[in-house]
Amino acid sequence: MQLGRVVGTVVATRKEEELEGLRLLVVHELSTKLKETGKMVVAVDAVGAGTNEVVLYASGSSARQTRVTRDRPVDATIMAIVDQLELDGKVKFDKSADSTG
Amino acid sequence: MQLGRVVGTVVATRKEEELEGLRLLVVHELSTKLKETGKMVVAVDAVGAGTNEVVLYASGSSARQTRVTRDRPVDATIMAIVDQLELDGKVKFDKSADSTG
Amino acid sequence: MQLGRVVGTVVATRKEEELEGLRLLVVHELSTKLKETGKMVVAVDAVGAGTNEVVLYASGSSARQTRVTRDRPVDATIMAIVDQLELDGKVKFDKSADSTG
Amino acid sequence: MQLGRVVGTVVATRKEEELEGLRLLVVHELSTKLKETGKMVVAVDAVGAGTNEVVLYASGSSARQTRVTRDRPVDATIMAIVDQLELDGKVKFDKSADSTG
Amino acid sequence: MQLGRVVGTVVATRKEEELEGLRLLVVHELSTKLKETGKMVVAVDAVGAGTNEVVLYASGSSARQTRVTRDRPVDATIMAIVDQLELDGKVKFDKSADSTG
Repeated sequence: MQLGRVVGTVVATRKEEELEGLRLLVVHELSTKLKETGKMVVAVDAVGAGTNEVVLYASGSSARQTRVTRDRPVDATIMAIVDQLELDGKVKFDKSADSTG
Repeated sequence: MQLGRVVGTVVATRKEEELEGLRLLVVHELSTKLKETGKMVVAVDAVGAGTNEVVLYASGSSARQTRVTRDRPVDATIMAIVDQLELDGKVKFDKSADSTG
Repeated sequence: MQLGRVVGTVVATRKEEELEGLRLLVVHELSTKLKETGKMVVAVDAVGAGTNEVVLYASGSSARQTRVTRDRPVDATIMAIVDQLELDGKVKFDKSADSTG
Repeated sequence: MQLGRVVGTVVATRKEEELEGLRLLVVHELSTKLKETGKMVVAVDAVGAGTNEVVLYASGSSARQTRVTRDRPVDATIMAIVDQLELDGKVKFDKSADSTG
Repeated sequence: MQLGRVVGTVVATRKEEELEGLRLLVVHELSTKLKETGKMVVAVDAVGAGTNEVVLYASGSSARQTRVTRDRPVDATIMAIVDQLELDGKVKFDKSADSTG
């Protein structure tokens, strides 16, 4: 999986019918320093992620191994909302400190 | 999935028989700023996309999870035509404003 | 799928037995301008492609969805020989004009 | 598979239920010179790897072929802890020499 | 598949049990000019490849389509030992000329 930040949404009325009802979120990939790498993906949301949240997403056939996405034409799925990222023994990211809510 | 813009078509009379009847579209990958990234793909069209339209396409085994492409030797499929792209709370792309038709 | 040009062949007598009888072609990936991108792949030929021909090849599990390659350990297959490539309404490549035969 | 070094962990309370109970480790990809390549992945731990250990991880559908990860939405799994890496006939890495424990 | 050169081996005693008995070889990816591209992979050996040999390896789910690797958590497998590479009608590599044995 990769780290990413949710930055937006895609609206599409004309689409493969198996995509009906899925939320399509725009995710910018992050490095372990939580900097944007320049890569992006449009991922299906399986966990109720919101804009600006740091998330984990899976790619490829693994993206279809959830209740929400099984057998659907999905190649990227947000699997988790990151609470804490610890690197070399130090907390590099803490969601409760990051958000204002 | 990735954002892309349909820029052309491929005609091939000599081909794997399982590709018969599929429309093969040339798609340039787009960044979230809707700039071309330099990557391209030849994707099967599952939604009736036209030239210049901004689309979403899936890659890998996920590209085969549609009625049009199931069990066919396809590794990229256009899954949706993008109506609107919203980033950081602002509409960055609106199909009705973009097209002249 | 990607565009490519067949540039050569690989001969291998010691190989996985499931590769027996398959033609292994060296393919240089092409951009939509038909310039080499610098990437290459050794692909199985499913359509009788010859040296110098512009082809479409599929990668990953999709490469195994043909009569020739089913259940074989193949991750790239030439699926079609390109007759014509049209971009932005103009013919950028025409096989009949390109070849001397 | 790729070589990597375990550099941290990810904590996520809100996640796809099929990820419950899995350890999520941050891994920096290594070259054969054991230098970081700049790529990273969040991988599920199948072997009890610890921080700073040099490991092998698999990606894609192969990441789901273990007892720990079968049918789970996982696209990267740590498969082995590297004891020794030998290149061109010389030992380039030896875990017993590398660790202080 | 990609061209590569076997440059070493990995020893790992603590590993996923499904990897038991498999030879893990370090492979440097090669261009069609047989120059190293800078990419590497740790691949399972399905054909008895030795150090310095030029090989073909498959990646992804295709790497599991051999007797040696079926259903195992393997994402790269050496499928063939290259005897000859012919580009643009010329022999660019000949194993019998390359090796001293």
